[in-house]
Amino acid sequence: MAPSTQVPVAATTDHDGAVHHDRAKAAARRGALARSNPNLSPDKLSIRGVVAELLSVANAEKALISLGVGDASSYQCFSEGKPFSGPLLESVGAGRFDCYAHSFGFPAARRAVAEYLSKGLKSGFCESDVFLTSGGTQALQVTLTVLATPGCNVLLPRPGFPPYESFCEVYNIEARYYDLLPQRNWEIDLDQVRTLTDCNTMGLVVINPNNPCGAVYSPNHLHQIAETAGELNIPIIADETYGHMTYGGSKFVPMATFANLASVITLGSLSKRFLVPGWRLGWLAIYDPLGTLKQVKVATELLMNVTSGPASVIQAAVPDILSDSHDQFHKKVLTVLENSADILYGRIKQIEALKCHSKPQGSMFMMVEVDTARLRGISNDMDFAKELMKEESVLVLPGTVLGMKNWVRIFFGTPADLLIDACDLIKSFCERRLIS
Amino acid sequence: MAPSTQVPVAATTDHDGAVHHDRAKAAARRGALARSNPNLSPDKLSIRGVVAELLSVANAEKALISLGVGDASSYQCFSEGKPFSGPLLESVGAGRFDCYAHSFGFPAARRAVAEYLSKGLKSGFCESDVFLTSGGTQALQVTLTVLATPGCNVLLPRPGFPPYESFCEVYNIEARYYDLLPQRNWEIDLDQVRTLTDCNTMGLVVINPNNPCGAVYSPNHLHQIAETAGELNIPIIADETYGHMTYGGSKFVPMATFANLASVITLGSLSKRFLVPGWRLGWLAIYDPLGTLKQVKVATELLMNVTSGPASVIQAAVPDILSDSHDQFHKKVLTVLENSADILYGRIKQIEALKCHSKPQGSMFMMVEVDTARLRGISNDMDFAKELMKEESVLVLPGTVLGMKNWVRIFFGTPADLLIDACDLIKSFCERRLIS
Repeated sequence: MAPSTQVPVAATTDHDGAVHHDRAKAAARRGALARSNPNLSPDKLSIRGVVAELLSVANAEKALISLGVGDASSYQCFSEGKPFSGPLLESVGAGRFDCYAHSFGFPAARRAVAEYLSKGLKSGFCESDVFLTSGGTQALQVTLTVLATPGCNVLLPRPGFPPYESFCEVYNIEARYYDLLPQRNWEIDLDQVRTLTDCNTMGLVVINPNNPCGAVYSPNHLHQIAETAGELNIPIIADETYGHMTYGGSKFVPMATFANLASVITLGSLSKRFLVPGWRLGWLAIYDPLGTLKQVKVATELLMNVTSGPASVIQAAVPDILSDSHDQFHKKVLTVLENSADILYGRIKQIEALKCHSKPQGSMFMMVEVDTARLRGISNDMDFAKELMKEESVLVLPGTVLGMKNWVRIFFGTPADLLIDACDLIKSFCERRLIS
Repeated sequence: MAPSTQVPVAATTDHDGAVHHDRAKAAARRGALARSNPNLSPDKLSIRGVVAELLSVANAEKALISLGVGDASSYQCFSEGKPFSGPLLESVGAGRFDCYAHSFGFPAARRAVAEYLSKGLKSGFCESDVFLTSGGTQALQVTLTVLATPGCNVLLPRPGFPPYESFCEVYNIEARYYDLLPQRNWEIDLDQVRTLTDCNTMGLVVINPNNPCGAVYSPNHLHQIAETAGELNIPIIADETYGHMTYGGSKFVPMATFANLASVITLGSLSKRFLVPGWRLGWLAIYDPLGTLKQVKVATELLMNVTSGPASVIQAAVPDILSDSHDQFHKKVLTVLENSADILYGRIKQIEALKCHSKPQGSMFMMVEVDTARLRGISNDMDFAKELMKEESVLVLPGTVLGMKNWVRIFFGTPADLLIDACDLIKSFCERRLIS
């Protein structure tokens, strides 16, 4: 088999029979090719794929309440007074930013991100540490690509953020999962991290503030994480997509604070805190006081040179957007979010068969455990989400997509009244199904 | 070696010596990891990398004239009266497009692209055939990813567009090169395509109008290409980034015209014709009357579900931008470009040691052969570009980056006077170096 597939199809054109035979084989083989990348099979779950499936079974007679996807930008209670269109209108109107940006981003935008990330650090990021990306998603893809070598693996949190896993599947990187511990406020199981790490481990992904759990790690826990990664000699991929989105007394501490203990690559974006997820403006920043990431930085430069970054007009607006002058807006958003977290936690706690272990202190999500044994006709989290959609048109994300069977992720970046309605509907749904 | 790398680092924590031994090995191994992806080595050439290197040696006493990179957007003779900021200002101002777009793009934008691509076709593209991407670059990356299987290869033109090659290198796809024939107006060597194709060939990349050669393929040649691909049973990846950018009597015919002969995936973007390369709005469109790309479409949907697409605010402006109402602007741009092509071709022809085989009829580039044997101190195209920068601050792209040693690519999307100045400087440079 193998040798014949190496023969060029046209190499035997002087023997008609052989040609046809080869062509037929080639066609069959290309039939397999046309079935395309085996890692892109329809069985693989993605948030967007599952959401689309759930939306298709919604109860047409009830208005949809979506607590499925992390986008608060369309709700007035969040977006009211949002001051970021101004800078973008200005950069579009200037007419000077239709050109290609530099591969790594416009210098002024990179500097602005470096300064933004350096707040509170003793010695911070500089312009050349920062690479602008098409949202946080491209930031994670670039990071995994530059760190990857044949046979490598990466440590991902469970529950986690599916695009990491998807990228690993498509590009043949082994994903290994460490647990976040619900009974310890979703801290990382560091013993497990140690056990999972081997010589081929390319990095440890840490999401803080955490999606999907709403946890915000204490300086002490971050210190432990950095110490562990330092001992194991693996870089930390610090996903800080929800950076600064903390409330209820918790405080965001950047992982780069501990870059003297372990190498840190920080990922972030405008999407969440600035409520412009559709603008696709993210970054990765390599803070490397230990000097272990020099080659990674070179590789990042090479990859960014052949990759498409974020739109120039949006890059041009970044310095204004990241300035301190919008702090009042951010404060207002956090007040709304804290109130939503209180509502969601308080109401879900009162629903039998559902359990939330801790109140979110950051991001816009809470994980809720579903006691399926107590709910009639519900054998898993996918059933729960589907039946809830069919009956109440309330969309929640099945935890299976995030690696946590029989949990659901609930988004609370919505107006309070909508959230209360949704909780009421979830409650009556559960009550109807409850096996007493 | 192999077994020890499989042992978790922490598996021997009860034996201190062993721990240290293992840690040291792990550190060494991770040193290798930190040297990162071997396919991202600094020796690999990219347009942007080479341009950066050349810019660093420019003659500081002379104003730079860049004929290196394909971006005409900053020149007034092209951008004057450009009507596309209007729709974008409108979509930003509306405040409704900060949200995530659908994974495949906003439906209205996909429909607009489908209609745009269908002009002149008997039966055309529909909304579900179109996927919006972050520029043409992401379109090619997605296409290669969904078609790829282990051990596959792809046929690329030589000279070509380096991001194809770079992507193949990073993600372990074998690139095979077929020649464009300068003496046949840069037509494709289809005999060579036949010889190169085997059972693992995943597709044939065809760039028309052509970057870097400025050729525009006739309907007859396109028919031959499609017929060949059909016989070989390989899909055509039709890179039409410069679609409709033709002049001097030549006419753009979309490859999809021949989709009854071979499967066609069409790639394109707003970047070139609409002079907004920094907006990063591209597309891939799967036109599949033969029904052979169904699985490829499913795979594309799956990949786009976990990938970051173009900015929502820009997507929202697409229907207006692609409407017929801007035809006058496009005509004006083509008039300027045709004039530039005439100037460049006419002037380069008069320079000894340089040779251009045909006048560009499309895109914004011309390939020029350099007779290095006749130029003192110039042993290859890289020398030529470097010395020209050092002496005259005129930037041209060494053909080596495009797979054509001792050629250079010259961009002519500049004002006529600048182009004339550049040609004069290139001429005097060559005259000074000429070995008579």
